[in-house]
Amino acid sequence: MTSSPSPSDASSAIEELLSAYHDLNPQSVEELHEEPSPLEFMRFVAQNKPFVLRKGASSWAACRRWNCEYLSEAMRGQSVKVALTPMGNADSVLALPDGAQCFIKPFEKEELFEEALAHIRSQSSDPSYKGPVRYAQTQNDNLRDEYASISPDVPSSVPFARIALQKDPENVNMWIGNSHTTTALHHDPYHNIYAQILGGKHFVLLPPIEAPCINEKTLPAATYRPRNSTAPENAQDLVVQFDDPPDTAPFACWDPDNPSVNTTAFSHLSRPVRVTLAEGDMLYLPALWYHKVSLSCSEEGICCSVNQFYDMDFSGPFWPMSGFVRSIGLSAIGEKQKKEPHNE
Amino acid sequence: MTSSPSPSDASSAIEELLSAYHDLNPQSVEELHEEPSPLEFMRFVAQNKPFVLRKGASSWAACRRWNCEYLSEAMRGQSVKVALTPMGNADSVLALPDGAQCFIKPFEKEELFEEALAHIRSQSSDPSYKGPVRYAQTQNDNLRDEYASISPDVPSSVPFARIALQKDPENVNMWIGNSHTTTALHHDPYHNIYAQILGGKHFVLLPPIEAPCINEKTLPAATYRPRNSTAPENAQDLVVQFDDPPDTAPFACWDPDNPSVNTTAFSHLSRPVRVTLAEGDMLYLPALWYHKVSLSCSEEGICCSVNQFYDMDFSGPFWPMSGFVRSIGLSAIGEKQKKEPHNE
Repeated sequence: MTSSPSPSDASSAIEELLSAYHDLNPQSVEELHEEPSPLEFMRFVAQNKPFVLRKGASSWAACRRWNCEYLSEAMRGQSVKVALTPMGNADSVLALPDGAQCFIKPFEKEELFEEALAHIRSQSSDPSYKGPVRYAQTQNDNLRDEYASISPDVPSSVPFARIALQKDPENVNMWIGNSHTTTALHHDPYHNIYAQILGGKHFVLLPPIEAPCINEKTLPAATYRPRNSTAPENAQDLVVQFDDPPDTAPFACWDPDNPSVNTTAFSHLSRPVRVTLAEGDMLYLPALWYHKVSLSCSEEGICCSVNQFYDMDFSGPFWPMSGFVRSIGLSAIGEKQKKEPHNE
Repeated sequence: MTSSPSPSDASSAIEELLSAYHDLNPQSVEELHEEPSPLEFMRFVAQNKPFVLRKGASSWAACRRWNCEYLSEAMRGQSVKVALTPMGNADSVLALPDGAQCFIKPFEKEELFEEALAHIRSQSSDPSYKGPVRYAQTQNDNLRDEYASISPDVPSSVPFARIALQKDPENVNMWIGNSHTTTALHHDPYHNIYAQILGGKHFVLLPPIEAPCINEKTLPAATYRPRNSTAPENAQDLVVQFDDPPDTAPFACWDPDNPSVNTTAFSHLSRPVRVTLAEGDMLYLPALWYHKVSLSCSEEGICCSVNQFYDMDFSGPFWPMSGFVRSIGLSAIGEKQKKEPHNE
């Protein structure tokens, strides 16, 4: 009863999908200057459409109070988990000397907050800094845990999102780093409300239907480990160690900022949209949007953001259809499919 | 760069799509007993999820006033367009004596409203009735046109839908027929708000992701024409005439009420949901849901409904992804793809 879709059938269908989507959707992120109502927000959710709300977080105590002195004072004596990498490349694809690729995770280290902050600032201001790149970003609800002493400076939810989605955030995260870090292209099964507190963040965004463009590959998983000590002094003290027992992770190998390498047959049809968050700005990033994020620093040499992850609704057609586009895309690029982890 | 998805790849992806969807979605239509707010309605829109609002239209003047006497009086002397078919099979697949299939459209005839109504009632009550089946259902905004004299009995919009969707209905339609008519499985690119006024309607519903189950084929188009006169007295006076110039239409050949014939490899994975509207009930049928509709009569021998079509939003991923599922499904069942008309 079934017949094989020819390569041209599947490729044409993917090309048609991408062009139909781009014909019907804006090539930029909509800018709001007033908070949406829950109904207005729900329209963005229904369309899986991002927006930036300029100055949307500017009334938060975090935006009014936070600076290096305040944070150090409030967090004095407390330790936090910090991601250490040689090149600011946490959770990304790494090309190995033998030409192979792996999915590399950072070395995670508990440090006194004020020490981590000093390292981050020092790298921003001191050209002779040789240490690893540090990014405090555990994405495990750390604001309400490690940073509990300053979490009252951030509203426990964003009302328009909480009312529309009928839930509190599943996860509230603090992100402190500097301009040496870049977060590689990935996506999350959450509605993401992202607020910029200090410095700036620069997003490159791809809609979920662009799964066939991003060259997802299942890569061996590895982690940076310090060569000798548990406290690597220099970036080159961090070495790649394959996970034991061996593990794999599916990850995007195409970089929209270097679009001519690691391509699929569909990468040239991607239309990345770019948006920069300044201090006080808020981004709504809908579930499953791919995002690559780079950082720029405040005058004090740090970049600080807070985000809230709200569970997405897996009912309706969007989740299974997104998985279908990914599956057909992987077949079309000849990549054997592995189950996507629920949260990557 | 591309490689052919094997038949098993494409078929597995379709099977996975259908089972993921069904695992995550209810197997029945949600029943509301209170009108949703615009925000609550927007959540149904976002999930492309139908609901029935019991007694949702019962306060309408149409529900309080309409009966055969009132309608005849209000419409006296006015003519309306009526669809005539031998078997109540307007806009459906017809098997021809030679085994081929065609897409058959009704003979459309202008008649005095009271005459059309008399025919419809007579067929309901008189076993010796031999005339064609009549269904007043032009779906061209007829309530605000042919039935303008009674259209004030229906609200010009349904507030929760108008506010959420930010638009008035594109189309408001009157449907008057009897239990001899069945509308074959099809879908529309509109949000459909359907209100039952007299008699009952019985819906079989399939979500848009079930496109690979419905056995869509591109069929030659034909129309019933009266054999001799312009006023066929008997059902058998209507004969099939292929359209000239020849035309085709894509149409569902699988019938969820006769599920073992005209199947695709995926039809057995369909999970049709059924819902019956009684007088005063309202159905929200989201855009692109397949629906088959049969009718039952009031005591007076007629079935009367009103529906409002609201334009769907073609932006976001839903419209292009639905087209993608249809394309890959057509390839997998070996059916050559034709462009789907924007409104069928």
